[in-house]
Amino acid sequence: MMKTLQVALGDRSYPIHIGENLLSESDLFTAHIRGKEVLIVTNETVAPLYLDTVKTALNDYRLESVILPDGEQYKTLDIMQLIFDRLLEARLSRQVTIIALGGGVIGDMAGFAAACYQRGVPFIQVPTTLLSQVDSSVGGKTAVNHPLGKNMIGAFYQPQCVLADTDTLKTLDDRQFSSGLAEVIKYGLINDAEFFDWLEQNMSLLVSRDPAALAQAIARSCQDKATIVADDEREQGVRALLNLGHTFGHAIETGSGYGNCLHGEAIAIGMVMAADLSQRMGWLSTEKVTRISNIMIAANLPVTVPDKLSSADFMNLMAVDKKVQDGLIRLVLLKDIGQAIISDNYDGDALAETLAKFTAEN
Amino acid sequence: MMKTLQVALGDRSYPIHIGENLLSESDLFTAHIRGKEVLIVTNETVAPLYLDTVKTALNDYRLESVILPDGEQYKTLDIMQLIFDRLLEARLSRQVTIIALGGGVIGDMAGFAAACYQRGVPFIQVPTTLLSQVDSSVGGKTAVNHPLGKNMIGAFYQPQCVLADTDTLKTLDDRQFSSGLAEVIKYGLINDAEFFDWLEQNMSLLVSRDPAALAQAIARSCQDKATIVADDEREQGVRALLNLGHTFGHAIETGSGYGNCLHGEAIAIGMVMAADLSQRMGWLSTEKVTRISNIMIAANLPVTVPDKLSSADFMNLMAVDKKVQDGLIRLVLLKDIGQAIISDNYDGDALAETLAKFTAEN
Repeated sequence: MMKTLQVALGDRSYPIHIGENLLSESDLFTAHIRGKEVLIVTNETVAPLYLDTVKTALNDYRLESVILPDGEQYKTLDIMQLIFDRLLEARLSRQVTIIALGGGVIGDMAGFAAACYQRGVPFIQVPTTLLSQVDSSVGGKTAVNHPLGKNMIGAFYQPQCVLADTDTLKTLDDRQFSSGLAEVIKYGLINDAEFFDWLEQNMSLLVSRDPAALAQAIARSCQDKATIVADDEREQGVRALLNLGHTFGHAIETGSGYGNCLHGEAIAIGMVMAADLSQRMGWLSTEKVTRISNIMIAANLPVTVPDKLSSADFMNLMAVDKKVQDGLIRLVLLKDIGQAIISDNYDGDALAETLAKFTAEN
Repeated sequence: MMKTLQVALGDRSYPIHIGENLLSESDLFTAHIRGKEVLIVTNETVAPLYLDTVKTALNDYRLESVILPDGEQYKTLDIMQLIFDRLLEARLSRQVTIIALGGGVIGDMAGFAAACYQRGVPFIQVPTTLLSQVDSSVGGKTAVNHPLGKNMIGAFYQPQCVLADTDTLKTLDDRQFSSGLAEVIKYGLINDAEFFDWLEQNMSLLVSRDPAALAQAIARSCQDKATIVADDEREQGVRALLNLGHTFGHAIETGSGYGNCLHGEAIAIGMVMAADLSQRMGWLSTEKVTRISNIMIAANLPVTVPDKLSSADFMNLMAVDKKVQDGLIRLVLLKDIGQAIISDNYDGDALAETLAKFTAEN
């Protein structure tokens, strides 16, 4: 049973297909490939598992592939050069379609490369992790990291379609899987309290990777995100809500060194910190903060700051985060479960208390 | 007397101001700067001449600058990293405005960096060469080179405005100046026969850098280009006419090594080659081919292929040029002076004869 959602973005609209065994469905690919040339971008972990399946589905095309090293620490302009090298060495024209086969890092880099190659060629997202299926493959944000900040160099660039094959989740390791659950929980917190309740009820099914529960959670997450993105493609307003947990989270990722803390783990902690700050502002009850912390724990996610990050480290790292306007740190906070807001009108002392609490033992 | 043209691109429309002493006109800048932060991107040749003037005009802003090495050989992703490094080290936010102060290379790199930094920040083009004033600052094409092809990595990204200060042309060396005249002549050849006639009459004035003649030529060139770009921003159709001389020219630039042959010099030769092929197709008279060659010579431009490029080199280099669709080389050719066409329907033998003629002594 394949579910299909549509991301409504005018002439950049595209479908998201969610279901089992999609990688071998040639028609799902070919409906979105205009020319005769295809470059598959994947990594050394995913390639042995799924590259041949996709190649078989596309054997009518002139196929090239590039296999990148696996990990957030490789999401750089230097590694992206390997994609351009392959495109040029293989003399692929501006009619080429790029297929991103992998997790969020592959999607971000292959998508950004597609945005830039000959000033823009089409691409298809084939996310193979839970995180990328519910988050990075929806919405057209592509980027690479800079040593001084995550996702600082990139483009808004929409794919032709997204194929989320739930079979690929079977091979995910537990940390990667839980990291994806953090983004799923995020949608409930932002604007979908009903979904948050459902997640509390079904977390043990999800953690055991029950296929039906997973398909439902992925579809609901994509729908929630697609709705927000359709309202605000270029993040002028409500789209910034999707950054719930991300300002704290990016600081945690950067401060602990790319690759040491998974993205979903970092934003899980970031969401708990945002809840703590929201509670200090009198917006969230202690009971709701506990529910938020508990659902993270149920999803096998961390809720404490790792390593030796200090309050000063946080302030320093958050100031270069891109959710800053003219020097003022804007945060996504919670008025309630299911009601996130963008605020630069919180109490600075409360922020200091939150940072002090979470870094007390560091 | 400042002339102002408008490039009509819907909500991405912008003005081009052409005149003397524009660099010190604060108002021309501030009308197009939204935040409080400005990064000026320039190079080691232009900085000593004009950086202080622009800084003085902008002394109400938080100003940062980055000075890149000068030359087409530095138009690479690696050098563009220096722009990102400066942006991040200076903690400039997504409210920053980037000012490109220099020739086409600076405009292409600063514009592409603006397109990518935090997925897009505004930028202002301040072209200081004739070539960039009439060509690269109009139309929103930004890019860097790859060792295997020119402008292979880039974005379509429009500036907030273009300030073409004709005073800056006084400091141009003769080769750079003539290189700009090649693009001016190109507009006459593409679709403006009246302008071509005017250029034939006024070439000696232009070569002597007569201010009034220059202002007229720049404004007419920008107008011709702006009209074509407004019809076809993303080069799906008529915009490709602007590549007259460029397929041959890019092969000459790449084959002779970036930096050895200036862009305008290479496309001057490329236009003469396109005229030769058009004559072999029976479209252009011998007399018109001679007029085209003569106007290049009058502008102090080369009309013969430099170095040791062979016909095989040309075929090899042209095949990766981006004006290729599914393996077939498309060329911009001339039905007449002032009537360029995009064609993949010419005689392959005639192309071979043109290449043989122009590479006979190599």
